[in-house]
Amino acid sequence: MSLVIVGTVAFDAIETPFGKTDKILGGAATFISMAAAKLYDQVKVISVIGGDFPDEYITLLNDQGVQTEGIKKIPEGKTFFWSGKYHIDMNTRDTLITELNVLADFDPQVPASYNDCTYLMLGNLTPSIQKKVINQLPVRPKLIVMDTMNFWMNTAMDDLKDVLTMVDVLTINDEEARQLSNEYSLVKAARKILSMGPKFLIIKKGDHGALLFHEDKVFFAPAMPLEEVFDPTGAGDTFAGGFIGFLAKTDDISFDNMKRAIIFGSAMASFAVEKFGTEALQELKNGTLYNRVQQFLSLVKFDIILSE
Amino acid sequence: MSLVIVGTVAFDAIETPFGKTDKILGGAATFISMAAAKLYDQVKVISVIGGDFPDEYITLLNDQGVQTEGIKKIPEGKTFFWSGKYHIDMNTRDTLITELNVLADFDPQVPASYNDCTYLMLGNLTPSIQKKVINQLPVRPKLIVMDTMNFWMNTAMDDLKDVLTMVDVLTINDEEARQLSNEYSLVKAARKILSMGPKFLIIKKGDHGALLFHEDKVFFAPAMPLEEVFDPTGAGDTFAGGFIGFLAKTDDISFDNMKRAIIFGSAMASFAVEKFGTEALQELKNGTLYNRVQQFLSLVKFDIILSE
Repeated sequence: MSLVIVGTVAFDAIETPFGKTDKILGGAATFISMAAAKLYDQVKVISVIGGDFPDEYITLLNDQGVQTEGIKKIPEGKTFFWSGKYHIDMNTRDTLITELNVLADFDPQVPASYNDCTYLMLGNLTPSIQKKVINQLPVRPKLIVMDTMNFWMNTAMDDLKDVLTMVDVLTINDEEARQLSNEYSLVKAARKILSMGPKFLIIKKGDHGALLFHEDKVFFAPAMPLEEVFDPTGAGDTFAGGFIGFLAKTDDISFDNMKRAIIFGSAMASFAVEKFGTEALQELKNGTLYNRVQQFLSLVKFDIILSE
Repeated sequence: MSLVIVGTVAFDAIETPFGKTDKILGGAATFISMAAAKLYDQVKVISVIGGDFPDEYITLLNDQGVQTEGIKKIPEGKTFFWSGKYHIDMNTRDTLITELNVLADFDPQVPASYNDCTYLMLGNLTPSIQKKVINQLPVRPKLIVMDTMNFWMNTAMDDLKDVLTMVDVLTINDEEARQLSNEYSLVKAARKILSMGPKFLIIKKGDHGALLFHEDKVFFAPAMPLEEVFDPTGAGDTFAGGFIGFLAKTDDISFDNMKRAIIFGSAMASFAVEKFGTEALQELKNGTLYNRVQQFLSLVKFDIILSE
């Protein structure tokens, strides 16, 4: 039994009102796998990197408990590179540079050692690549979670809709939910998207929390109000990693357990934004994480005895 | 013992993507008092209206359980009139018309029958008028809740800061909290505002819910995800009315009870936006309200047993 994560392993260069970085370790699969590995011990990544990717980053991932046999190195190629600059509200950013590099010809290969995959997380990537991974697995995983973004809705909607029919959980943000469904109300949007394939829909609202929809049920998880948001890069991926890591660890995909998983994802994300890149995640200890989860419980807890 | 509400009783003309109204009943004190009267039976309003204000609106308020002795009629004057148009996202609006009319010279008089005031709600108004009401009360109320807006921060900040030192609870929205504190982070903003006078701060985030800050504690109440938002006018006032109505009814101003009060306020507001103006509030029955409160409980409820 294992959790397989497909996505980018990349370089990021980030500028925020609080500072800027050179090229540092980034990428969806990096954040997802590091977050998941805090909770679950069989985390395996599928990705592609270039000859410029330092061995020490692979060692770092391994030290964090992430298995990297499925990360293919193209010695003559360059690693995917993204650079962005955040505005003062930290909710909006400008992309400065996107160099696809080795990602442009990424043809994912699932190693035989990944065939025990029971949980599959498809990080934000070209939908056709996400589909290739699903199709290579000898046994359909117990749960497939998919992340995507508006870029694929604009450029590959048919492929995206095709993959949607193959997955169990979709995670997107509120604007993307509106775009995908053509509905402004998130309740209506959710109903439409749940009819496109996924049985569960998570709508991420950044620092306004996240909504989980399933059948006629809805659950809301707040984001932790923070003193300071230092770098939001990877927050959504960290959330997804905490979510699926918790599900894999507990091996329970009921609605009630998904609620808990979302709280763990939210707690994990609340740390990720406190430092640049993966720094906060690297340092995160389970005790600290569990304290934060406890804070989430206090944040929303109230009791009401209803009598007129 | 009674709950006294100071604020506008007015005409609104509203345009939304779903339709438009002629001049209908509106105003902060109208929404606050109608919401509060759903929960508490001694609700008394202080306001001013013109000769054009129909008696049937006063009868409507009375029928809803609102006492109106403190609403002064200026026969030769015209009632305050506001007209606005909402954008498709329903979170932003343009003000089309603001006619202050009788509000321009409003000199509030607290009737002797209001001297039993134990809960005082200062609806959004000129800070100096809010202060006049506090100073006229023979006994300092058990709890004073104050609403305000960015307009007064721009035009009467000194007066506003003066009234802040006299109140227990301040309700403002997130942008206003940032403006008042000069802090982007709501956690930092809350700390600063709590040092300006109020012991409790409620930051309203519209359809993203509300935060309650007190000392080092924080509570988050979500907004109910709705199929359709028809008219957001008065949602914040309805929230405030449900909040203070619940506190007056239960006569308990502990932090834990304020959490419950916020849930009641949120539930009340979730109805208000479903129809134009006060229509939904007029029709609202307690049973329906209590069902909605129950839905809030389900919306955020999760259980976690923490073990590593």
